[in-house]
Amino acid sequence: MAPAAAGSGIPEVKAYLNGVDAYSILAPSTLFVKIFGSILGVSAGFVLGKEGPMVHTGACIANLLGQGGSRKYRLTCNWLRYFKNDRDRRDLITCGAAAGVAAAFRAPVGGVLFALEEAASWWRSALLWRAFFTTAVVAVVLRSLIEFCRSGKCGLFGQGGLIMFDLSSTVATYSTPDLIAIIILGIIGGIFGGLFNYLLDKILRVYSIINERGAPFKILLTMTISVITSMCSYGLPWLAACTPCPVDSVEQCPTIGRSGNFKSFQCPPGHYNDLASLFFNTNDDAIRNLFSNGTESEFHMSTLFIFFTAVYCLGLVTYGIAVPSGLFIPVILAGATYGRIVGTLLGSISDLDPGLFALLGAASFLGGTMRMTVSVCVILLELTNDLAMLPLVMLVLLISKTIADNFNKGVYDQIVVMKGLPYMEAHAEPYMRHLVAGDVVSGPLITFSGVEKVGNIVHALKLTGHNGFPVVDEPPLTEAPELVGLVTRSHLLVLLKGKMFLNDQVKTSGSFVFRRFGAFDFAKAGSGKGLKIQDLDFTDEEMEMYVDLHPVTNTSPYTVVETMSLAKAAILFRALGLRHLLVVPKTPDRPPIVGILTRHDFVEEHIHGLFPNLNPHRFHSTSMGG
Amino acid sequence: MAPAAAGSGIPEVKAYLNGVDAYSILAPSTLFVKIFGSILGVSAGFVLGKEGPMVHTGACIANLLGQGGSRKYRLTCNWLRYFKNDRDRRDLITCGAAAGVAAAFRAPVGGVLFALEEAASWWRSALLWRAFFTTAVVAVVLRSLIEFCRSGKCGLFGQGGLIMFDLSSTVATYSTPDLIAIIILGIIGGIFGGLFNYLLDKILRVYSIINERGAPFKILLTMTISVITSMCSYGLPWLAACTPCPVDSVEQCPTIGRSGNFKSFQCPPGHYNDLASLFFNTNDDAIRNLFSNGTESEFHMSTLFIFFTAVYCLGLVTYGIAVPSGLFIPVILAGATYGRIVGTLLGSISDLDPGLFALLGAASFLGGTMRMTVSVCVILLELTNDLAMLPLVMLVLLISKTIADNFNKGVYDQIVVMKGLPYMEAHAEPYMRHLVAGDVVSGPLITFSGVEKVGNIVHALKLTGHNGFPVVDEPPLTEAPELVGLVTRSHLLVLLKGKMFLNDQVKTSGSFVFRRFGAFDFAKAGSGKGLKIQDLDFTDEEMEMYVDLHPVTNTSPYTVVETMSLAKAAILFRALGLRHLLVVPKTPDRPPIVGILTRHDFVEEHIHGLFPNLNPHRFHSTSMGG
Repeated sequence: MAPAAAGSGIPEVKAYLNGVDAYSILAPSTLFVKIFGSILGVSAGFVLGKEGPMVHTGACIANLLGQGGSRKYRLTCNWLRYFKNDRDRRDLITCGAAAGVAAAFRAPVGGVLFALEEAASWWRSALLWRAFFTTAVVAVVLRSLIEFCRSGKCGLFGQGGLIMFDLSSTVATYSTPDLIAIIILGIIGGIFGGLFNYLLDKILRVYSIINERGAPFKILLTMTISVITSMCSYGLPWLAACTPCPVDSVEQCPTIGRSGNFKSFQCPPGHYNDLASLFFNTNDDAIRNLFSNGTESEFHMSTLFIFFTAVYCLGLVTYGIAVPSGLFIPVILAGATYGRIVGTLLGSISDLDPGLFALLGAASFLGGTMRMTVSVCVILLELTNDLAMLPLVMLVLLISKTIADNFNKGVYDQIVVMKGLPYMEAHAEPYMRHLVAGDVVSGPLITFSGVEKVGNIVHALKLTGHNGFPVVDEPPLTEAPELVGLVTRSHLLVLLKGKMFLNDQVKTSGSFVFRRFGAFDFAKAGSGKGLKIQDLDFTDEEMEMYVDLHPVTNTSPYTVVETMSLAKAAILFRALGLRHLLVVPKTPDRPPIVGILTRHDFVEEHIHGLFPNLNPHRFHSTSMGG
Repeated sequence: MAPAAAGSGIPEVKAYLNGVDAYSILAPSTLFVKIFGSILGVSAGFVLGKEGPMVHTGACIANLLGQGGSRKYRLTCNWLRYFKNDRDRRDLITCGAAAGVAAAFRAPVGGVLFALEEAASWWRSALLWRAFFTTAVVAVVLRSLIEFCRSGKCGLFGQGGLIMFDLSSTVATYSTPDLIAIIILGIIGGIFGGLFNYLLDKILRVYSIINERGAPFKILLTMTISVITSMCSYGLPWLAACTPCPVDSVEQCPTIGRSGNFKSFQCPPGHYNDLASLFFNTNDDAIRNLFSNGTESEFHMSTLFIFFTAVYCLGLVTYGIAVPSGLFIPVILAGATYGRIVGTLLGSISDLDPGLFALLGAASFLGGTMRMTVSVCVILLELTNDLAMLPLVMLVLLISKTIADNFNKGVYDQIVVMKGLPYMEAHAEPYMRHLVAGDVVSGPLITFSGVEKVGNIVHALKLTGHNGFPVVDEPPLTEAPELVGLVTRSHLLVLLKGKMFLNDQVKTSGSFVFRRFGAFDFAKAGSGKGLKIQDLDFTDEEMEMYVDLHPVTNTSPYTVVETMSLAKAAILFRALGLRHLLVVPKTPDRPPIVGILTRHDFVEEHIHGLFPNLNPHRFHSTSMGG
C-alpha cells in the first residue's frame, strides 16, 4: 500500500529536505501506514523504535498542511495556501521533523537541534526560530497531556513525566581513572557503532533483493523476524538463573501484571529473573532499568552479555523489514547494555555507577552510528536531566564519532546512498575541480523560442521529462539570438491549459496574460499533483498556433560560464538550492546557451558515466581550498 | 590604545564572521586590552558583564592562532599555517566565540548554539562539529579547574561548580493561572526589552558624539558613570530598612567579609539590609540571590523596585563607555528583579516561587533584547539545571521575542548598524527586486590586460583601494576581447614583489611562476598584515616592463548577467560568502565585463545614494517569493 512507510523515514525526510522531491515520501497514504504500522510494530515487541517513524510522521503532517490539506481526502483549507512555494514548504517540513523528535523524546530543544544537525540541508535564522516555536508548542501540549493523564488513565503514556529517564538524583564526581575508563568506553563504542553501520548496509542489501521479489516475500521476511524475536524474548530468559529480590528495594519485587523493574518469569516468589526484566518489558522500561542507579548487582554479567548480543543482532535484522522501524531505541538499548557491561568490568578502576556507564554507553553507540553530536547530547540531557554528566557525554560522543568516522558514513547517509536518492552534499567532491561545467551538461538541449509554436512545446513536454527549458529569442524577434531565461514545465502547462494562443509569432504585453490567470494558478501544487501534459488535448489547428512564453519566463536565472570549474558550479547549485543552472558559452560567436545542469549532473554516477577513466578517489587527498 | 576593545565585542565578532574584515576588531592589542579591561571593569563594580568580552576574547585568541601566532610579538607556530585561508580562519573564530560563551556561562552546549544562532553567518555541519569539539574541551578543562579549586584557593572561581545557579531542587508544577501570569510576564518583559534597545540606541548615539571629541572626554565620561554607579551602590541601600534575619536560614546571616545572601550594611547584628544584599555583592551572587527559592519575604517590594530601576538605568548608561562591557549580566539582573516583582505582585493568582519568576523574568528580558531563542534557552538550562521549567522558559522567550520584534531589531544587530559596519543579511531587501545588477555597479571600472604593463598595475593599486580587478585578454593576445577572470590585490602584490617581469607582452607558461613562488607566498596573511603597495619600489625601467597575470588569475569567478535581479545577485553574493561578483553584459557586442559588485554595493546607503527617489520602505510589504 505505501512501501515508503517502511523503515525509519529519517533518510527519506533528509533527502526530501535536500531537494529530492519524490511524491510517495510524504504522501498521505504513507502517513497513514506509518502511524498505524509504527504502533503495531512497537506493540508487537520488535526491537525497533518509534522515534524515526515519529519524525517521518511529523514531516508527513507538515507536508499535508503545506499543500493546503489533501484534496483527495477532502481536507483542504484556504489560508494554508501561504505555503504554495518551495521554501516555505521546506521550512514547514523541517519544523514537522523537529516536532516529531520533540514529541518522541519529550525533548523540545533536542528536536530543534536534530532538525538542524541531521535533517535540514539549508538553514537560516528564521527557520531556527520557527522550529523553536513548533517544539515549544509541542512541549506545552505534551505537558498538558501528561498532566491530564497523571492519574494513569492513558496507559503507559502518563508514566515518566516530561523527563523520561530521570537520573538527576545522582551525584557525579569523577576522577582521572574514571576518565580513562570513559575514553576506553568511547573507543570501543565507536568501533561497535561503525560495525553496526557496516553490517546494516550488508543486511539491507540482502533484504532489498528479497523484498524486490514481491509482497509475499516481504511478509514472509517480516514473519521470520517476528518469530526469531519472539523466540529470543521467550526462550533466552530460561537461560538466566533466579535472583532473590533485594531486601531494601523501593519498588515492588517481583513486578506482576505490568512493565517494571523485576520480572518473576519462571522464578518462585521473592525472586526475579534479570534477563526477563530486560526482555519482558517495554523498551522504555528496559532502558530505564539499565540506566537505574545504585543497582550494581541487579543484573548478572552473563545476562547483560546475552541481552547485548540479542539486541544488537535483532536491531540489525529488524531494520529493513516492511515495518516502520526507528533505530534510536535499538541503538540506545544495545549501547546502554554495553555501557553496563563495561561499567561492571571496569568497576575496579572506576567509582562511577553502572547506571551512568549505561548512559555513556548509549551515547557512544549513538555517536558511533548516527554521528550526531550536539543534538544527541541535548536529547540525552533532556531524557535524563543529568546536567552534571554533560562533559562526559560530550567527551564520549566526540571519541566515538571520531573513531567511527574512520570506517564509514553515518547510518542515515548510508541508507540515502543505498536507496539511490540523488543527495547533494554541501561541499563539492575533490574530483570536480578537474572538470568544468561544460563537460557534464546533458544533451541534447531543447530550447524554446520566446514565441513558440504550441506543437513544439507539446512535443517537447511529451518526449522528455525535463522540468526546465531555456528560452532564446531568435530573429525575427531580435537581431541576434539572445537568452531570455528559463521556463518551467509547470508554468508551461498552466499556460497551455489556458489556451492563450496567438496566430502569429509576435510578442504580446505580459499584462494580457496576467489578466487571465491569478497568482494561485502558478502556485506550486502538492508533490505528485498538478497538471500533466497527458491531461491536455489540443486540436490540430491549435498545435499550429503560437504562444508567448515571455510572461512566464524567469528572466533572472542563475548562470555559469562553460569554463567554470564544476566544483564551484556545484557549490553554487547546492548553496542556493537550485533546480536548474544554465551554462552559457564563453565566446559570443556561439548560440547563447550551452546546456542546463540539474541535480543529477552533480551526482557521482553520472559524472563517472561520462568520464569512465576519472578515478574520483585519486584526488581525494587534495583539499578544496577557498 | 585599542578602541575596538570597548563595549561587548559580540557585534564586532558578528560583523567579522559576516565578512567585514576590519583589522583592529581582532588584533592582539585589542585582545590584551579586552582581557585586562574586562577584569578591571567587573571588579570596579560597574553594572556590566564579562560574557560579551569573553566571546570577543575567544574570537581574538582564535584569530591569533589562525594567523600562526603573532609575528609582531614573536609568537609563531608553523603548523598553524593550515588556517591560511578565509574559510578555515572564519571557522576557527566561530569556535573561539563558542568557547567564550561556554567558558563564561559554563554552558558548553549553549556556547555552540550561541555561535550558531547569533554569531555565525555561514554554517555547515563540519563547523557544528568543530564548535562542539571546542566547547567539549572547554567543559573538560573548566571541570578540572573547578575540581582543582574546590578548596577555595582560587577566590570566587571555585564557587558554584559547573552549574552556576543550581535550582534543580525545586519541584515545578504549574496550573493555568500560572500560565496566565507567565504570559503577562512575557508580554511586559518583551516591551521592556524593546524599550531597552531603543534607549540604548539613543544613549549610544549621544556617547559617540562625546567619545569622538577625544580621549580626555572618553575618560571623563567613564569616570562620571563610575561615580554615578558608586553613588547608587553606597547611597541607595540607606533607603532600605533593616530586616531581622530569618530564623531558619541555612546560610550565615548577616554575611560578613564576603559576597553572600544577607548583607548587614548599617544594620544592627541579627538584621540585614536587603538592598545592600543586592548592590553590595558580585553580580553573580546578586543573581543567585534573586533566583533563590523559598525566600518569598527576603526582599521588600520597594527594594526590588529601587534595584530594578537602578540596574536598568545603569546597564543602559554603562554600555558604550570606554570599558569592555557585556550586556548579558545587566539584562539578566534587571530581568530577574523584574520577574521577582511580577512574581510577588501576582503571588495571589500563581503558586510559583518568586525565584522561578525571577528566572522567567530574566528569560523574558533576554528574549526582548537579544532576540535569541534556542541558545538563551539552553544557556539558562545549563545555568540553572532546571529542566522542568524548560517549557515555561520557551514560552516566555517566544512571547517576549515576538512582542519586541514589533518595535525594533535585536540589540547586537542595532549596534552593528550604528557602527556603520556593512553587515549583509541572509535575505535580500524587498526593494532590491526592482533593480538589476547593472544598476548599482560602481564606476569607473579598472581592468587589466592578461599581460599588463607593471606601471599600470602599480598606478592602479596606488590610486584605488579596490581589492579585485577583472583581467581581460585583448588583441593581440586573442582575437576578440575575452574575460579571463579576476585577480586580487594581494596576489598582484606578491607577483610584483617577486619581480617576475617580461620585456614583451607575451603569454608565459604558468609553471615558470610557480617554480619561483611557494604556495605559502600566496597564502592569506593575517588581517592588517601582508604586503602594501607603498612598501614596494620599482625602477623606471621595471615600470615599463610587463608581467603575466594569467598564473595568478582566478579563471572561475562567479558572474551574473547585468539584467539579473539585484535581489538574486545579493542572495548569490551572501550565500556563497563572496568578495567580488563580476557583472557581464547581456549582449556580445560590448566589452566582456560591465563591472564588479562588492559588499558595499548591496548596502542600503549605497543604493539609496544611487537612487534617491527609491523609497526602500515603500516595498516592504511585498514578500520575497521563491
